[in-house]
Amino acid sequence: MAEEVKLFKTWSSIFGLRIVWALKLKGIKYDYADEDISNKSSLLLNYNPIYKKVPVLVHNGNPVVESLVILEYIEETWKQNPLLPQDPLQRAMARFWASFGVDKILPSMWDAFIKEGKEQEEAFTATTDNFNYLEEQLKGKKFFNGDTIGYSDITLGWLANLTCIFEEITHTTLIDRERFPLLFGWIHDFSNAPIIKETLPPHDKLIDKYIALRKAFHEAQTQNA
Amino acid sequence: MAEEVKLFKTWSSIFGLRIVWALKLKGIKYDYADEDISNKSSLLLNYNPIYKKVPVLVHNGNPVVESLVILEYIEETWKQNPLLPQDPLQRAMARFWASFGVDKILPSMWDAFIKEGKEQEEAFTATTDNFNYLEEQLKGKKFFNGDTIGYSDITLGWLANLTCIFEEITHTTLIDRERFPLLFGWIHDFSNAPIIKETLPPHDKLIDKYIALRKAFHEAQTQNA
Repeated sequence: MAEEVKLFKTWSSIFGLRIVWALKLKGIKYDYADEDISNKSSLLLNYNPIYKKVPVLVHNGNPVVESLVILEYIEETWKQNPLLPQDPLQRAMARFWASFGVDKILPSMWDAFIKEGKEQEEAFTATTDNFNYLEEQLKGKKFFNGDTIGYSDITLGWLANLTCIFEEITHTTLIDRERFPLLFGWIHDFSNAPIIKETLPPHDKLIDKYIALRKAFHEAQTQNA
Repeated sequence: MAEEVKLFKTWSSIFGLRIVWALKLKGIKYDYADEDISNKSSLLLNYNPIYKKVPVLVHNGNPVVESLVILEYIEETWKQNPLLPQDPLQRAMARFWASFGVDKILPSMWDAFIKEGKEQEEAFTATTDNFNYLEEQLKGKKFFNGDTIGYSDITLGWLANLTCIFEEITHTTLIDRERFPLLFGWIHDFSNAPIIKETLPPHDKLIDKYIALRKAFHEAQTQNA
């Protein structure tokens, strides 16, 4: 029986991209639906009634939700091209850095993007302080996973996706080539790996989206001031 | 070579207990240190410099942090008495409910505990609304994991630990026996399983701790009003 693999995502979801990359790296054929977040499909709401969010992976009729849960599911269901290392300690570290990125870096990076003045400066510093940990992880390695792209790279991949966009819009340099040579190199190598490059959302459309988001936040701040 | 397994926790940490239960269920001998959160040890800060939190599991000198990451590490390192089901879809669901408990139930349950008036009522309703999902999961099963305690039970175990404490302090009934017979039964069966019962923090000390916490929040709210 042919497998049914369908991914519900949006055209730009950073967590949806994790699943796209995992499926591509494993060579799994899949269908997808790009949801409109302002008008979610009844299928999405049916598959993920609690969080009502993308990504959702539907495999032979069974929905799996939450990007990190989906990644483990993909790894356990299709064993070819393992995303995680074999050693339990290295697997633990890979899972740790995935959460670190979202818990520690994403919020301050977002604040560095939408805030202004002193708040912006503080968020910028908090973000780059945390980049030190990632720089350390890349010592002696091309990718976080080693010689090839793996779990850590696809879970931190949103960083490669968004950093350039944020830098271009704010006219700042988040990942300074001198200060973070390894992280700078990783963003280049990761973004240019064929599977990643061909699946990144269109640059100009992303720029437009994040300019609009930033403007909306600035307007909201002005109204609340 | 004898294995060194040491757990850094606090006497009452709900996330530390997850690790205690996992190690006990697997029959792993371990040493532990109960940290004083107001005066953390230099060892803890050294092992978990980023989050500076318990639990930390140190195995043969290597620290693993974050309770869900530690659970996966334990499962992969000591294969006896598996905590997770074998089927990838069931494993995904177990991981999903672990996050659901902390993302969706814990915050509203906490608000139901520390807030007052209308805010308290709304949080109470949000909490019990989410209990419906757990009640549904227990249909035809004694434990979330099935006939025996597993990953879902130990990750949701904080609920069995705290519900009675919150009910006793607030004189409310969070888990009504008529409305949630299966969840009510689960709390009883889980709390009375020998490994769980012998490791739960002392009841009276927990009551004192949470009365003091609640009082501190009420005082802070009054000062901010």
